[in-house]
Amino acid sequence: MMIMMMIYYWSSVRYAEMAELAQLIDSEVFLAYATYTTIVLLKMMLMSVITAFFRMTRKAFSNPEDTATFGKGENAKKYLRTDLDVERVRRSHLNDLENIVPFIGIGLLYALSGPALSTALLHFRIFVGARIFHTIAYLTPLPQPSRGLSWLAGYAVTISMAYRVLKTGLYL
Amino acid sequence: MMIMMMIYYWSSVRYAEMAELAQLIDSEVFLAYATYTTIVLLKMMLMSVITAFFRMTRKAFSNPEDTATFGKGENAKKYLRTDLDVERVRRSHLNDLENIVPFIGIGLLYALSGPALSTALLHFRIFVGARIFHTIAYLTPLPQPSRGLSWLAGYAVTISMAYRVLKTGLYL
Amino acid sequence: MMIMMMIYYWSSVRYAEMAELAQLIDSEVFLAYATYTTIVLLKMMLMSVITAFFRMTRKAFSNPEDTATFGKGENAKKYLRTDLDVERVRRSHLNDLENIVPFIGIGLLYALSGPALSTALLHFRIFVGARIFHTIAYLTPLPQPSRGLSWLAGYAVTISMAYRVLKTGLYL
Repeated sequence: MMIMMMIYYWSSVRYAEMAELAQLIDSEVFLAYATYTTIVLLKMMLMSVITAFFRMTRKAFSNPEDTATFGKGENAKKYLRTDLDVERVRRSHLNDLENIVPFIGIGLLYALSGPALSTALLHFRIFVGARIFHTIAYLTPLPQPSRGLSWLAGYAVTISMAYRVLKTGLYL
Repeated sequence: MMIMMMIYYWSSVRYAEMAELAQLIDSEVFLAYATYTTIVLLKMMLMSVITAFFRMTRKAFSNPEDTATFGKGENAKKYLRTDLDVERVRRSHLNDLENIVPFIGIGLLYALSGPALSTALLHFRIFVGARIFHTIAYLTPLPQPSRGLSWLAGYAVTISMAYRVLKTGLYL
Repeated sequence: MMIMMMIYYWSSVRYAEMAELAQLIDSEVFLAYATYTTIVLLKMMLMSVITAFFRMTRKAFSNPEDTATFGKGENAKKYLRTDLDVERVRRSHLNDLENIVPFIGIGLLYALSGPALSTALLHFRIFVGARIFHTIAYLTPLPQPSRGLSWLAGYAVTISMAYRVLKTGLYL
């Protein structure tokens, strides 16, 4: 009986540790992270398609092999040019990369730091909403400070998550 | 004895949950993800070396401090220029970033969603193969649609993984 | 009693497996990874602020809507220009993306591969230190090979981590 109690005690201690870990990855917070990360990455991937669309409708390419279908020689060369709309989409795409990469990296660690579900959802929703609005503001384009503020909102969310990660467990 | 049975029952329930989690990270799928992610990131890192190689052989630099070894004044300034081959490598590198970042992020969540090993391997192998071929097609350059199709293959794989992640557990 | 022993034996086997997993994520190595990744991503995010600062002090913008506060017509158009300092910050930012993305991806897998804490800390510290110095060397700018060597240090650390990941569990 005593041995059994010991097993039971030992088990529950170990279980407590395990449960903590399991709660972190199997939790709704992690599921929410997975959902919003996937959505915002799909949004970023859409930029490639928009770039391709503008390149083809504006006939503005970077590579000679891309203009081969328009004929040879000088006729094709004139399509090797920069276009204002194409460049705008490309800047928007790069801005996505610069901001979504920190969100994914810090967001993963944030999701594993065991935040309250409602707080985590607030962070993820604001970030993804801000980035979608940022793209709309960039491509329309909407007058400033629309784009600036949506960039700032996403930026602030990432800083807030980083603060929690460092507060939860700083190991230098 | 009854207590023991209870412990046993309780244990097996908890074990089942834990085992699920353990299977996710310790699984061959996760190992495969780790392998292919590392390979495709090393491939992307190679682009930095290729850029440096082209900058030095073509003598085309962006920063005045990089041309200091070629002398001073006007003699060095003429190397501050863009070169067609250097720009081509840089576009290829940026295209890698734009496509490999979504693969890593969505791929991690996909690997944790418990796909069949063979399906997962198919996704990872097509993606990494497509990206390696994309670089070859970009730098040779091969006539289109070589580059376009290899880009599309990697893109489709990532979309397919995203679909499974969102289907497995959508939490909005 | 025999059943109890069986449970105990079975438990300890399963526990061993679980403990391994728990050690990976709850370990100090993972905590160190979380800390250094967050720091280096915050450093990268700082580049956006520095870019904005230079754009405003140098009055050099990419988008017409950003120059609307300077008046209309030709008066505003003259601020749509590239500036040497702005371009320098942007190249530094892009170099961060190209190098920090592989570090985060490979570093996560490396942290889960169960390295010795001291070895892991050495990797993370050199990488983060090298990237901070790289930014200083790029923006000052310091004479070469300051920037080149700091880039190389971060690059070598990432290769070293990738080597361990592939050595620990290669699954092709």
